[in-house]
Amino acid sequence: MDKPPPLVKDIGEQGLLEKLQSFCPREIIGDDGAVIPTHPDKDLVVTTDVLVDGVHFSDRTTTAFDVGWRAAAANLSDLAAMGAEPLAITVGLSLPGDVLVSWVEELYLGLTACLQQYHTPIVGGDICRSTVITVSITAMGQNLPHQVIRRSNAQVGDVIMITGWHGLSRAGLELLLHPEVGAELNDDERNLLIKAHQQPQPRLDVLPYLWELAPEQPIAGMDSSDGLADAIAQICHCSKVGAEIERSYLTSVPSLSKVVSTEKIEEWILYGGEDFELVLCLSLDNAQKLIAKLNGGAAIIGKIIPEPYIILLDNNNIHPPQILRLSKGFKHF
Amino acid sequence: MDKPPPLVKDIGEQGLLEKLQSFCPREIIGDDGAVIPTHPDKDLVVTTDVLVDGVHFSDRTTTAFDVGWRAAAANLSDLAAMGAEPLAITVGLSLPGDVLVSWVEELYLGLTACLQQYHTPIVGGDICRSTVITVSITAMGQNLPHQVIRRSNAQVGDVIMITGWHGLSRAGLELLLHPEVGAELNDDERNLLIKAHQQPQPRLDVLPYLWELAPEQPIAGMDSSDGLADAIAQICHCSKVGAEIERSYLTSVPSLSKVVSTEKIEEWILYGGEDFELVLCLSLDNAQKLIAKLNGGAAIIGKIIPEPYIILLDNNNIHPPQILRLSKGFKHF
Repeated sequence: MDKPPPLVKDIGEQGLLEKLQSFCPREIIGDDGAVIPTHPDKDLVVTTDVLVDGVHFSDRTTTAFDVGWRAAAANLSDLAAMGAEPLAITVGLSLPGDVLVSWVEELYLGLTACLQQYHTPIVGGDICRSTVITVSITAMGQNLPHQVIRRSNAQVGDVIMITGWHGLSRAGLELLLHPEVGAELNDDERNLLIKAHQQPQPRLDVLPYLWELAPEQPIAGMDSSDGLADAIAQICHCSKVGAEIERSYLTSVPSLSKVVSTEKIEEWILYGGEDFELVLCLSLDNAQKLIAKLNGGAAIIGKIIPEPYIILLDNNNIHPPQILRLSKGFKHF
Repeated sequence: MDKPPPLVKDIGEQGLLEKLQSFCPREIIGDDGAVIPTHPDKDLVVTTDVLVDGVHFSDRTTTAFDVGWRAAAANLSDLAAMGAEPLAITVGLSLPGDVLVSWVEELYLGLTACLQQYHTPIVGGDICRSTVITVSITAMGQNLPHQVIRRSNAQVGDVIMITGWHGLSRAGLELLLHPEVGAELNDDERNLLIKAHQQPQPRLDVLPYLWELAPEQPIAGMDSSDGLADAIAQICHCSKVGAEIERSYLTSVPSLSKVVSTEKIEEWILYGGEDFELVLCLSLDNAQKLIAKLNGGAAIIGKIIPEPYIILLDNNNIHPPQILRLSKGFKHF
């Protein structure tokens, strides 16, 4: 008997992506956004995200305002990850007729509240009927050609620097799903974690400091939206290098220990996802200067090595050296 | 009793659009695309379209290849309507896991077949799981700032010129839905009409001829994707003018009379939709020159008048003067 023709779920998201990438120019694949040279002095950077009700958000944990905020933040974070200054976004919205008008207005309020911080307008869109709410956002930005950050630029000898704290968004989600958790948290601590999940901030603020350093070599980096471990793995994969990560440097805010056991904290830092911080590969000197400019709101967590694996070391000798487990991330199909 | 809060279907597509436009910068609303000044010498033009299975396409009349082709054509046509040369598109695709992989590949083959004619790459996208196939496309183009075509630029004294033929896409749809129709058509005629529906061509080819004329005043125009009558009405509305249309100039290909009654031909020309031709308002002199450059593949059908209505005149005195009936177009909610 003939084998039935394969369905999307048979080959999975990765399989489908690989098939579809053959329809795109090879040089633009693999980064958070696509770079289109439009002028001798500027590049256009474009990124697209689709959010589907019941997959990416649900009324249980996310208000329409926060759906909008997070969608805007995720796209602006992709631009930050490419080193690009945002220009504008478009919104393609399909939804059932029985959605509350106020839900749609709240969605747009959330979008614009996040975007206005970066003077980024919604310049267009489309609305149409569907059986499921789907929000498709395309963000456009621009940068100087030598200021494009790419996953493939990491070089042996670079240190790996991360901005901000990781694991907070995952902790915020836990508090939303299980309000009984974290009874020892004070209000400020609880709000910080929940806000990290509901209204993350893209790290566009880092870029001016980065360019001030006038780094001599192209910078490697991406955002940690799919998790810190995933970001390190993607950079290593695209740059054909490996990484040594020092576990004792994988710290987060102290309040995390009031939400989850010590053993789990590292897991949330590495695999929690949706922290929308930047993971950059720089010379030690530039990393130290950038950390100083960010008033310490960043840290070196390891370095790029030639061997093609990611190894977790432990200065404190609590754990033996360990190859980083790579989560497969969220499976769409 | 309190009135229940309004749903999207209570205020309809137009009502929702009006609410959402308040979130966009006022100067960018109302055209086929948004214009973002990025450089002293160039503008970025952006347009977004969302297509939903069961609303915009169905397996009964549209193959995946044609869904892709039409989606690309519609977006490139929006760029043509703005006077912009295409740069790239992104594709946001959400779909159920039980879609055939070959369906998705055919979709991308259709997209690229149309795009490649204009050297336009797919530079990015996103795929995710959903309960309904949704294709969201954002197209980017660029033009010189003085070459932007806008709906609001029409001036009294301009003539109204249309490219190509109208009503063909509607006739093609009829042949697909009712194969028994048009028994007198020969194969070439039938294929021409069906192809007009399945694989329309954006009129980007018109732009170089248009700029060659070096028109002194800004050009008004849009595409006729939502119907020729709608295009004229939108231009008049945005330019705060009216129009006089000469019915005897509303002609189409002769084969249309083998598909539909003479009375219906005019209706299909005016309201059929999806012909993706250009409707331009130009000086008589420039319109005549452009028609010559297009080897007659264009025609003057009327002129812009100061009175705020659209009137159909009839040189042949078959019909009395008549105010153009404005179809409300496709209602999404």
